[in-house]
Amino acid sequence: MQTEITPALVRQAAERIRPIAQRTPVLTSHSFDAESGVSAFFKCENLQKGGAFKIRGASNLVFSLSKAELEKGLIAYSSGNHAQATAIAARHVGAACTIVMPADAPHSKLQATRGYGANIVTYDRSRENREQITTAIIEKTGATLIPPFDHPFIIAGQGTAALELLEQAPQLDALITPIGGGGLLSGCAVAAKSVNPKIRIFGAEPEQANDTYLSFRSGQRVQVNSDTIADGLRSPMPGELTFAIIRALAEDILLVSEDEIRAALKFLLARMKILVEPSGAASAAAVLFRKLPPDVARVGVVLSGGNVDFDQLAGM
Amino acid sequence: MQTEITPALVRQAAERIRPIAQRTPVLTSHSFDAESGVSAFFKCENLQKGGAFKIRGASNLVFSLSKAELEKGLIAYSSGNHAQATAIAARHVGAACTIVMPADAPHSKLQATRGYGANIVTYDRSRENREQITTAIIEKTGATLIPPFDHPFIIAGQGTAALELLEQAPQLDALITPIGGGGLLSGCAVAAKSVNPKIRIFGAEPEQANDTYLSFRSGQRVQVNSDTIADGLRSPMPGELTFAIIRALAEDILLVSEDEIRAALKFLLARMKILVEPSGAASAAAVLFRKLPPDVARVGVVLSGGNVDFDQLAGM
Repeated sequence: MQTEITPALVRQAAERIRPIAQRTPVLTSHSFDAESGVSAFFKCENLQKGGAFKIRGASNLVFSLSKAELEKGLIAYSSGNHAQATAIAARHVGAACTIVMPADAPHSKLQATRGYGANIVTYDRSRENREQITTAIIEKTGATLIPPFDHPFIIAGQGTAALELLEQAPQLDALITPIGGGGLLSGCAVAAKSVNPKIRIFGAEPEQANDTYLSFRSGQRVQVNSDTIADGLRSPMPGELTFAIIRALAEDILLVSEDEIRAALKFLLARMKILVEPSGAASAAAVLFRKLPPDVARVGVVLSGGNVDFDQLAGM
Repeated sequence: MQTEITPALVRQAAERIRPIAQRTPVLTSHSFDAESGVSAFFKCENLQKGGAFKIRGASNLVFSLSKAELEKGLIAYSSGNHAQATAIAARHVGAACTIVMPADAPHSKLQATRGYGANIVTYDRSRENREQITTAIIEKTGATLIPPFDHPFIIAGQGTAALELLEQAPQLDALITPIGGGGLLSGCAVAAKSVNPKIRIFGAEPEQANDTYLSFRSGQRVQVNSDTIADGLRSPMPGELTFAIIRALAEDILLVSEDEIRAALKFLLARMKILVEPSGAASAAAVLFRKLPPDVARVGVVLSGGNVDFDQLAGM
């Protein structure tokens, strides 16, 4: 397997995913800029198909598979946006798709994933291991695993968000994305640096899920127990591939508190009228609460997704 | 004063307001179309400057005033989006602006309007009359009244939303907007019919604020007591100018319940990730709950605004 994530791989991805991924709009806001002290250009992946950037990576990998592979089906384990994205990409190519999800995942996510035609296998989080369940199904069916982040085609696919953003908003001097497993940040870093080698790359991570922050500081991958409202950023440690890229290309990882995430989400909703999920708002929170170096003037901010239940939103 | 609202007046307005009004995006949604049975093209005035279409009409009138008029200042009475729009337009031309608002208006609206530099005069809704207060200020200062809907320049300004929509989404067979005083619907009707004489025009009104519905049915303006969560649609009766146009050009007024408005708002938020206020969602509610004639296939839906407090939203 090719493990080097090159700009060419991202450009290939941009071509490959064109039939399914939206070119999402870039929005600006005078009031956000006034509050944050920078000019922010929001890449609205909350308006993406499936409600998150995840379709970019999932479809890039799924669309690269052979007919023989597709006939044996696809499988992913995820309780969140990657599950829906894999299901959407599988349906697009007519492949069977199994998603392994915890039995206590939000009803709306189970329903949405099922709605895209996926076969859901649930497991008990306290007693069962999702990797084991997934491996057992793969051994039986020969299905191809679509991993959530640590795969060159997933990373390259996520990077297409930055390729578009830099076309839509040229002359950025920095780019920031949220960090879960690091697929979005690493892909966007490769893409952005290939267009503008001087662009400064930042990741935003919850204080309560600071695995990449600690890994970045120590120089090696660190595992943490995450507990944050940003459910898409709870991955316990960065990926091998993603962390190598982040170490090489990112300038810093910026931490945001739970309150800052909530405040950013509410600001985006109240002032910009767009719904962003807590994970997706982490990047905006870092900018709004002025965590960027003071000499950053024009920053691209990836809002990574918008899938939040109304009840969860109402409780914030 | 010219009282005929011609297509030329709308085109003039489009030129005049260009320095201030956004060309808002038009969004589509597979899931909305699947649910409603039509292809809907959403004109997102919730993403407009000030959070609503009102800047179109207010700036069209304000920008048409003479220097001498502007020097005497502007005045409007409104507790809602028209107040903010008038304040924004006034600030743009450097004119003083007084807004007469009920003392119990939502704190966020008072604050937002003040934030745009307007001078707020509050009154007690139970004891005082806003028209009398406004008239007294006009007599003292010579300020120009910027009325909320029943003025040719206001109507023509609102119509620019439909002009844009028909450029962005050609080949619509119908257009629907919410109805408060009727400025948006009447302006959009004139504009849309001038581009496509066959387009069918509908208004959406809450069952609990059905003044235009009753007026349309009876052929004369009827006054009702309104009580709806769609606070922008609570005007007690249609305007003289607006009603004449609506009578001539609209095919029907469609009523929506409070629950249908809430459900549409939540659908737009959950599936399309955009925040629309209850008034703004009335048009989407009429389409989502299939109130349109069954032979309408492609409909333009004006989402008129997005200004809703987080607490109000959370309580829905």
